[in-house]
Amino acid sequence: MSYKSGRHFLQIPGPSPVPDRILNAMSYQTIDHRGPEFAELGQEVLAGIKRIFKTDSPVVIYPASGTGAWEAALVNTLSAGDTVLMCETGQFATLWHELATKLGLEVEFIPGDWRHGADPHAIEARLKADTGHSIKAVCVVHNETSTGVTSRIAEVRRAIDNSNHPALFLVDTISGLASADYRHDEWGVDVTVSGSQKGLMLPPGISFNALSDKALAAAKQARLPKSYWDWQSMLASNATGYFPYTPATNLLFGLKEAIHMLEVEGLDHVFARHQRHAEATRRAVRAWGLEVLCLNEDEYSPVLTAVVLPEGHDADRLRRVILERFDMSLGAGLGKLKGKIFRIGHLGDINDLTLLGTLAGIEMGLSCAGVPHQAGGVQVAMSYLADT
Amino acid sequence: MSYKSGRHFLQIPGPSPVPDRILNAMSYQTIDHRGPEFAELGQEVLAGIKRIFKTDSPVVIYPASGTGAWEAALVNTLSAGDTVLMCETGQFATLWHELATKLGLEVEFIPGDWRHGADPHAIEARLKADTGHSIKAVCVVHNETSTGVTSRIAEVRRAIDNSNHPALFLVDTISGLASADYRHDEWGVDVTVSGSQKGLMLPPGISFNALSDKALAAAKQARLPKSYWDWQSMLASNATGYFPYTPATNLLFGLKEAIHMLEVEGLDHVFARHQRHAEATRRAVRAWGLEVLCLNEDEYSPVLTAVVLPEGHDADRLRRVILERFDMSLGAGLGKLKGKIFRIGHLGDINDLTLLGTLAGIEMGLSCAGVPHQAGGVQVAMSYLADT
Amino acid sequence: MSYKSGRHFLQIPGPSPVPDRILNAMSYQTIDHRGPEFAELGQEVLAGIKRIFKTDSPVVIYPASGTGAWEAALVNTLSAGDTVLMCETGQFATLWHELATKLGLEVEFIPGDWRHGADPHAIEARLKADTGHSIKAVCVVHNETSTGVTSRIAEVRRAIDNSNHPALFLVDTISGLASADYRHDEWGVDVTVSGSQKGLMLPPGISFNALSDKALAAAKQARLPKSYWDWQSMLASNATGYFPYTPATNLLFGLKEAIHMLEVEGLDHVFARHQRHAEATRRAVRAWGLEVLCLNEDEYSPVLTAVVLPEGHDADRLRRVILERFDMSLGAGLGKLKGKIFRIGHLGDINDLTLLGTLAGIEMGLSCAGVPHQAGGVQVAMSYLADT
Amino acid sequence: MSYKSGRHFLQIPGPSPVPDRILNAMSYQTIDHRGPEFAELGQEVLAGIKRIFKTDSPVVIYPASGTGAWEAALVNTLSAGDTVLMCETGQFATLWHELATKLGLEVEFIPGDWRHGADPHAIEARLKADTGHSIKAVCVVHNETSTGVTSRIAEVRRAIDNSNHPALFLVDTISGLASADYRHDEWGVDVTVSGSQKGLMLPPGISFNALSDKALAAAKQARLPKSYWDWQSMLASNATGYFPYTPATNLLFGLKEAIHMLEVEGLDHVFARHQRHAEATRRAVRAWGLEVLCLNEDEYSPVLTAVVLPEGHDADRLRRVILERFDMSLGAGLGKLKGKIFRIGHLGDINDLTLLGTLAGIEMGLSCAGVPHQAGGVQVAMSYLADT
Repeated sequence: MSYKSGRHFLQIPGPSPVPDRILNAMSYQTIDHRGPEFAELGQEVLAGIKRIFKTDSPVVIYPASGTGAWEAALVNTLSAGDTVLMCETGQFATLWHELATKLGLEVEFIPGDWRHGADPHAIEARLKADTGHSIKAVCVVHNETSTGVTSRIAEVRRAIDNSNHPALFLVDTISGLASADYRHDEWGVDVTVSGSQKGLMLPPGISFNALSDKALAAAKQARLPKSYWDWQSMLASNATGYFPYTPATNLLFGLKEAIHMLEVEGLDHVFARHQRHAEATRRAVRAWGLEVLCLNEDEYSPVLTAVVLPEGHDADRLRRVILERFDMSLGAGLGKLKGKIFRIGHLGDINDLTLLGTLAGIEMGLSCAGVPHQAGGVQVAMSYLADT
Repeated sequence: MSYKSGRHFLQIPGPSPVPDRILNAMSYQTIDHRGPEFAELGQEVLAGIKRIFKTDSPVVIYPASGTGAWEAALVNTLSAGDTVLMCETGQFATLWHELATKLGLEVEFIPGDWRHGADPHAIEARLKADTGHSIKAVCVVHNETSTGVTSRIAEVRRAIDNSNHPALFLVDTISGLASADYRHDEWGVDVTVSGSQKGLMLPPGISFNALSDKALAAAKQARLPKSYWDWQSMLASNATGYFPYTPATNLLFGLKEAIHMLEVEGLDHVFARHQRHAEATRRAVRAWGLEVLCLNEDEYSPVLTAVVLPEGHDADRLRRVILERFDMSLGAGLGKLKGKIFRIGHLGDINDLTLLGTLAGIEMGLSCAGVPHQAGGVQVAMSYLADT
Repeated sequence: MSYKSGRHFLQIPGPSPVPDRILNAMSYQTIDHRGPEFAELGQEVLAGIKRIFKTDSPVVIYPASGTGAWEAALVNTLSAGDTVLMCETGQFATLWHELATKLGLEVEFIPGDWRHGADPHAIEARLKADTGHSIKAVCVVHNETSTGVTSRIAEVRRAIDNSNHPALFLVDTISGLASADYRHDEWGVDVTVSGSQKGLMLPPGISFNALSDKALAAAKQARLPKSYWDWQSMLASNATGYFPYTPATNLLFGLKEAIHMLEVEGLDHVFARHQRHAEATRRAVRAWGLEVLCLNEDEYSPVLTAVVLPEGHDADRLRRVILERFDMSLGAGLGKLKGKIFRIGHLGDINDLTLLGTLAGIEMGLSCAGVPHQAGGVQVAMSYLADT
Repeated sequence: MSYKSGRHFLQIPGPSPVPDRILNAMSYQTIDHRGPEFAELGQEVLAGIKRIFKTDSPVVIYPASGTGAWEAALVNTLSAGDTVLMCETGQFATLWHELATKLGLEVEFIPGDWRHGADPHAIEARLKADTGHSIKAVCVVHNETSTGVTSRIAEVRRAIDNSNHPALFLVDTISGLASADYRHDEWGVDVTVSGSQKGLMLPPGISFNALSDKALAAAKQARLPKSYWDWQSMLASNATGYFPYTPATNLLFGLKEAIHMLEVEGLDHVFARHQRHAEATRRAVRAWGLEVLCLNEDEYSPVLTAVVLPEGHDADRLRRVILERFDMSLGAGLGKLKGKIFRIGHLGDINDLTLLGTLAGIEMGLSCAGVPHQAGGVQVAMSYLADT
């Protein structure tokens, strides 16, 4: 076995680096999930996570990764053969589409170029055309982890409202929560799906469904088979701080600490910090003469930046060089973007110097891998960070 | 906040105490689940867990608790309306029944008294009667956590064979794996369901399906909707050490260590250790003049012992007294046993002195709570342990 | 490498088991010992440790084990050739004597039988006889770790006062602090010596000198060479929360947590808890038909109990059997008690069930090792603990 | 309490960042320091640390910080009034001088400008002039932590040999060990002093004396009073893997892991890594138009780089700005260098990206604090690191 000196730079768009405080919180002995100490923990995290989603409605916590929470959002609200409207924002929207199809739903997929967010106008137009209300839900990915593009959820909400359509509004902010501003209640979302290993700074293993009254009403009619994901048994147990089956207790220890840390820093501060690091990153990318994948500056992700490589250069080779030479992990291009882009995670528990180390690793990696670029990206990012 | 001096005694039948080695293994930074370091980890744990199940077939690892693995076993092998034969061994068998029903399966439930394991003869009789092979699967709980009764899986296998019935054989050994002897291949089980927080000594959060060729063949025909639980995408990714969605990486760090520790001790030694602690516990129970719930000595669980309280005495009050006075958690009576029994976990990372501390806490608790009993249970257990 | 299932029982009279909270507190990154964050930590622990010693005078914290703090107490207050009066309470008093001699001091050693504490009358008599005041200091071990005998410090103080002798009063409560009631100011002690790995529940590595005005005045005259142990440079740096050389930072993290835990429990509660466990232990010893080494019940240690083995039986063999069979460490007989006694630590982070596990291990060990005894010690201890 | 997002950059020249592997190793329960498990640990670390010092002679491990090991080297080999020859290489040489004086030794201090290492010629000249051999020891600081200048120990050894002088040769490599090449035996050093919190990557709390036969012979004649530091009792106990008083057990757990990690990486690789990072740092400093304090390029420290600020600019203000804005600790100018320089630690568990984050923090800090400089230091360091 060999050790590399120094810390690995985990700069993928999740899992993000886990703070020592959270790792320590998770390292206590598992407790009896049916005892009084657990009930206190359960009530505390169930209340706290609502503040993070900015909702007064219940949030369900699953011992599962985000993919499970995707499935949960669908099986609790829909029935076999129902039509859902999805938007092709990137690979994760595509995977959610596939998942829905596997569950027996009909998916209408508004096509996209993977460089823009969901188009509120297209959604509005489609819903207005659906006079028979065959569409039961609109599903949008808030922060598309495969592209670094953020969809404008409030505008999608307005689009649905403008169309006077009764469809449910389901949003995936797995990689956006606690990094990008998100407002479940204010934006009128019916089910928000999220996970632990991104802005919440936890290891993967728990995921979330934030609900609305409308979602709960829909759940009473939904006939897709479900048990593990069933909200009803969850909410019944959660009322007293417990869970209907064994929860991932040690991740809940970590969640309690994560919520505490986020609230001590302040969510607005957290969001501003992410925006600042994202801007510094984009400035570096442009200084290198490379292209940010996201084409709409209103939709830049504060969580990650996807960078397009010049034609004829393999982004995966670049990533491999950087991993071997500089012990840093970057995100790969997924699906049809494989080899064409790489993704820089700048979320969670990082700071200016970590970000600059990250950008330095990329700038050196571009050199080592022979990717045409101009030097100076780090310099530009430093100027920006020093001035703000 | 108040602290209690000394360690809490977590003597429920799971989650069991987590060894420091495992907590430490889990406290490393999460790694990139798509990078080369992860592939090594993935391959190592996927290979290692097969040795624990004693199988050469694949074992699927879910980021989910055991309940999820129950659901996975069913949705991968069955179709809506299929009939499954289950055996009422206790509360967990009952919950699996409910889960199956929720998924749209027809369950035939062979009744039981919650004091015996599944009856091989009854299974054989029922299967022989099912000449039309409407029963698609036989589902048995190996170690019934609610009762401390272990079903004789090898004998159930023979019963199925004797009946020449093609039903699949699905076994839950969530609380048995790595504590009680278990042999997936030798016993001809098609799907074994298990979890992390029992004999594997991990916190809850991952669970398992061990497969067979027959189960894999059945999966090709099964039409219950599934995505998160789908074996096919799992096995495809697992081939190179990866997972189709984000795994619970830090629990996999712990799993690697757990497998290592179990194999250094040796599984046979682990099983013998559990048997010895179970016998010491039963001797104490009898010395107190109390009754072990399990009526068949061939079916005593090495994992836990359920103890019947004298009529008119509330087991939950006893448990509360013990928790408050002696900082020990014991298992409650579940379902129809609520208040009538308590359950002593003696599994996982414990030793003679922990067990004796446990029994001492119970003996003192019986006194404090005014439950009629004879003193001397600890003394009897000490004699047994000192002599063996 | 082999692992033993379950936790080791560390029942020596220090180091005592370290609570997870403290291990976690110690596992954070070391910080800059000259930065502002350190100053806060320094001031907090320097203030807090005074409350533990019950003093308003400074307490010096050394990166050293208790032996270093012994040396510090002497070199800061005395000069070569000075006479000190010590009391032969056991092995640690003897070692302190040897240390003083090595430093060039003249030691008068009031002989003892290792079964009683320091004799206030003998001290008073000797001091009254020392009309020329050649004796510069009286040195007493408060809690003799080698014998389980506690000296009556308040009475020794009165003895010194009664003799109208100006000698300094130096007390070692290395193993007594935070387990046995101790009052530096009220008892008029000039230097109290202590360490981290006993009642403070920390790993070994830091030790203490609590001072008095008289001690500080003596330090100005003392001419034994010193630098590392020099109070003056310590106190000068401590004024702003810093240390004159690199402190054992991570142990200070742990100390902060230890003080917090002790104060949340309340020192009086901590002392009562130790007394109760000590009494339970002595009752078990007597039930076995064995003898407690300490002969004066006013001097029973709440920290540990030394047990005399029947003539012809080797206590070290017993300890070895217990270690091998039951994975428990007990204290050996030291010095002239080697092989004749063993010592049971019942201090720090333990509870009733741990203590009963400990006593069970001893009772079984006595059987396994063939040491004549009566069964029933654990039973007697259980009765006592259940009733109190 | 407030948390800063991301990891603190601890870039002082020790304590250096502690790897998670070592923090984890230290977080196990303290064990009985008189039991058989400890003896194995003791023997392993006592053997291993010899390989790190490159010596076949014993290495003594103290529960103390480096200052204690300084004292130990002197009190074990010298007597009151002995003359020692020291070299004014910087603040730590000055402190060692003060310590020696406090212990009652006569110190001859060869003056220096704090920008060069010890001068072998001056030492040789002084020793040749000492025909009466009144000088009993030559004491040199190998890696002067206050200046970033490394003394040429092999050349000093030749100087002593050339002078045919019998003086002992005592070397402090507290901040050099396991970062800078060091050869106790080959270089003929009699006592090497070191500590844990630098190249060994441990928290502070243990320190070392590596010995020679000549040192051991001198110890028999040395008459300075000593007990805690006494080599004889240490070596007697160490023979079986034990210590004469309670060792800092948990730091020894960490030391075992540190030795393992260093040997897996390979000491030569460790040294080359430090040299490379030091060179990158100096290139950055020069690109900024600032001055490296060390004037002799043969004496550049691989451990740290001290940087001279332009006249009229306060280095401590710069450090404060960097700490507040970028959460990085840098070393202060000590003694007569206070406010004039700052020191960059680039030792221990760091890598290219951490170093570049560090240099970026400094470059931005120079801007924020208004210190005249040219941009581009990070760029130059990146070029160097990418090319090597």
